[in-house]
Amino acid sequence: MTIKEILKKIDQIKEGSEYKIEGWIVSNRGNEKIRFLTINDGSTISNLQVVIKGEIINKLSLATISLWTSVSATGEIHLTPNAQQPLELVLKTIKILGNVDSDFPIQKKETSLEFLREIPHLRNRTNLFKAIMLIRNSLAYEIHKYFQEHNFLYMASPIITSNDGEGAGETLLVDDESKEYFFKQKAFLGVTGQLHAEAYAESFKKVYTFGPTFRAENSHTSRHLAEFWMIEPEVAFYKLNDIIYLADDLLKTVIKNTIKNYTDEMKYLDSINSGLLDNLNKFLDNKLTIIDYKDVIKKLEEFKNNFEEKDIYFGMDLASEHEKFLSEQIIKGPVAVINYPKDIKAFYMYQNDDKQTVAAFDLLVPGIGELIGGSQRESRYKNLIERMKELNIPTQSLQWYLDLRRFGYAQTSGFGIGFERLVMYVTGVANIKDVIPFPRVAGQIKM
Amino acid sequence: MTIKEILKKIDQIKEGSEYKIEGWIVSNRGNEKIRFLTINDGSTISNLQVVIKGEIINKLSLATISLWTSVSATGEIHLTPNAQQPLELVLKTIKILGNVDSDFPIQKKETSLEFLREIPHLRNRTNLFKAIMLIRNSLAYEIHKYFQEHNFLYMASPIITSNDGEGAGETLLVDDESKEYFFKQKAFLGVTGQLHAEAYAESFKKVYTFGPTFRAENSHTSRHLAEFWMIEPEVAFYKLNDIIYLADDLLKTVIKNTIKNYTDEMKYLDSINSGLLDNLNKFLDNKLTIIDYKDVIKKLEEFKNNFEEKDIYFGMDLASEHEKFLSEQIIKGPVAVINYPKDIKAFYMYQNDDKQTVAAFDLLVPGIGELIGGSQRESRYKNLIERMKELNIPTQSLQWYLDLRRFGYAQTSGFGIGFERLVMYVTGVANIKDVIPFPRVAGQIKM
Repeated sequence: MTIKEILKKIDQIKEGSEYKIEGWIVSNRGNEKIRFLTINDGSTISNLQVVIKGEIINKLSLATISLWTSVSATGEIHLTPNAQQPLELVLKTIKILGNVDSDFPIQKKETSLEFLREIPHLRNRTNLFKAIMLIRNSLAYEIHKYFQEHNFLYMASPIITSNDGEGAGETLLVDDESKEYFFKQKAFLGVTGQLHAEAYAESFKKVYTFGPTFRAENSHTSRHLAEFWMIEPEVAFYKLNDIIYLADDLLKTVIKNTIKNYTDEMKYLDSINSGLLDNLNKFLDNKLTIIDYKDVIKKLEEFKNNFEEKDIYFGMDLASEHEKFLSEQIIKGPVAVINYPKDIKAFYMYQNDDKQTVAAFDLLVPGIGELIGGSQRESRYKNLIERMKELNIPTQSLQWYLDLRRFGYAQTSGFGIGFERLVMYVTGVANIKDVIPFPRVAGQIKM
Repeated sequence: MTIKEILKKIDQIKEGSEYKIEGWIVSNRGNEKIRFLTINDGSTISNLQVVIKGEIINKLSLATISLWTSVSATGEIHLTPNAQQPLELVLKTIKILGNVDSDFPIQKKETSLEFLREIPHLRNRTNLFKAIMLIRNSLAYEIHKYFQEHNFLYMASPIITSNDGEGAGETLLVDDESKEYFFKQKAFLGVTGQLHAEAYAESFKKVYTFGPTFRAENSHTSRHLAEFWMIEPEVAFYKLNDIIYLADDLLKTVIKNTIKNYTDEMKYLDSINSGLLDNLNKFLDNKLTIIDYKDVIKKLEEFKNNFEEKDIYFGMDLASEHEKFLSEQIIKGPVAVINYPKDIKAFYMYQNDDKQTVAAFDLLVPGIGELIGGSQRESRYKNLIERMKELNIPTQSLQWYLDLRRFGYAQTSGFGIGFERLVMYVTGVANIKDVIPFPRVAGQIKM
């Protein structure tokens, strides 16, 4: 049993029962007669306190044992229902397994996030990163669970593709050492799995991808990575409203279950970032706001003096400051903006009757801005190929994609969630580099 | 409710209840007075038969409707407990949504796998590929479920790394268009997430990765891809035997649950590949065979005339023919070979006392050969750095990895499962290109 399991099933734990713990020492206090070693086993940020009395303290020089030493200990459980921790372990035996050299870079005193980013192989030992990564794990699994319980097929869209994304020119290239086109043509790291997912939605109806995507993103912001994970559901027989409802239900379900299953971690994160749980609960308890892009423009115009970019007009792409202001100050919560001008959105989105807009949506959340982007896909072969020609997108390499519209096409809709942005939203962490184990950005590969 | 759900809960379905199905037509027979449209909704390879009587047949020209047309139909459920399918739908309304152009390349008659590999965006509509991909989905989810229920943390090891794998020179490089080192140094697509997973096992104890890995693999075999998915668990406080037991239990659990939850698909695959279910069940019912490499050499020597490579000696790397013969002819089932000579294994494996071998294992299965490879990791800093120097592996870029041994190290062990090989094993499919949606191999990128 892990510490997490013990704490969950505390009612079933009997006084005096034997327990063996393997883990790492995170605090060590006391004197020569009694010592308290706190051990963490990685299952939760909560620790187990081990009480040690008698000769063994001196025999094993326990007073000088360093933080983060790995140990194996056995003892008897002593229930302490009135103490902060509901139980402790009265030590019988302890084995010191791995010592800690004196140049271990993380000391007990507060360490800056910047410093910890230099040591991504060790920062996972701090309470903060343990909490973040446990929440990240929960969100990933809850997403799989949600889709599986709703009859979605998990599919692997290819990572290496012949498409250069949406022509944004921010794509990474792949080749072998000889650089003579290992794949007999230019090959790219995928920026989306959506087009391939559409092909699978045309037989499995509900599919999703969950994999890494890449951008040769040169801007150093707190919201961008060169390598990040995306979840992309694609559903046949779904239109714009259906997919927005799915996005909302998915988010609420995975966040609700994560808060429920990781109370200690969420409380800890809330203590660092006050208001975190309140805001998440407010999102869970309220209906998602849906607002038309053209109405957003009107609202933003009213507040234009709040922005660096004050020129607000129909047709503009919303900047990060606009997105944040909309969700943080105007709506005060997550908001789905729909029906964007077609010229600022991708070629494959369904063209609305107004000829100006497409059936797209972006879900914006406080603190982050865009968390999800999606759309109903253009179902009409003619409209799609005309739009591609207007945008000078070569149709030949995407003929297979166009052909889906000719072979028993069922309207699909879908969206992409930037997984790291979701982790930021739920943990309240401000920098995207802190929610992925080994962040990759332009100019550096640490480890 | 999907067709899969209806068939599962058939006891609760009431005669005459209303049902709406959205899906694709997979057969169309009958006459002007009565027609039977069979519809598939992607949730299972099983279909729903829709019975149509009366005027609507002529009115909608249902007699000429093509296979794979997408439709939405409503009707009343009619239970048929004595027929092959336990229920049918008596049609009330039907809407034809997407027609099929006459150049649709998949016809009713048998189509070769080679031909289908040319159209990976459409082959998913055949029964065979539906079955394969449903099983693939089940195996992926069961793997996540197994690890989550056993307190593992799902972690994202980086895809882009500065390591060129294990120096095998079969690594793909990444850069942006300008080719001036976007990451300020040579960057590679990862061949393993293990080293990074070890860093996380040193705080979370039990971790696993599940992501794509890459090889600039130039050989065109039925068992290799340039892009494939790997699952890599890494567990602290575990030794070789613990990790072999974990691999065996994981495999048995995910295969057992998949057979249970996808009976129709497994029966269908068994009908194509006779003996499939028998062999899988034999694996489930028996203890895994564990055999020492040196004893394998003795056994193979006895059979050396069966091999192209007849030179059998201690120190040799087992060829695919040897691995297959061992599991198919000698053991007649999965087998874990342990304690390989150190010179044919990776630098990070635990050096046994005999100075000749390392605490590694390969799990070999009939039909495929190597499915899993793993080891207990070298825990001793001195031994590890000496081995790296012997093998001319630069230590500087892996100093962070070496350092794990100096900072409260707990012995870890782990393994990697080639996910596509697992799908091959469970589906009985012989070519790895047929178990991943869009296969990537040297010289071509289809779609």
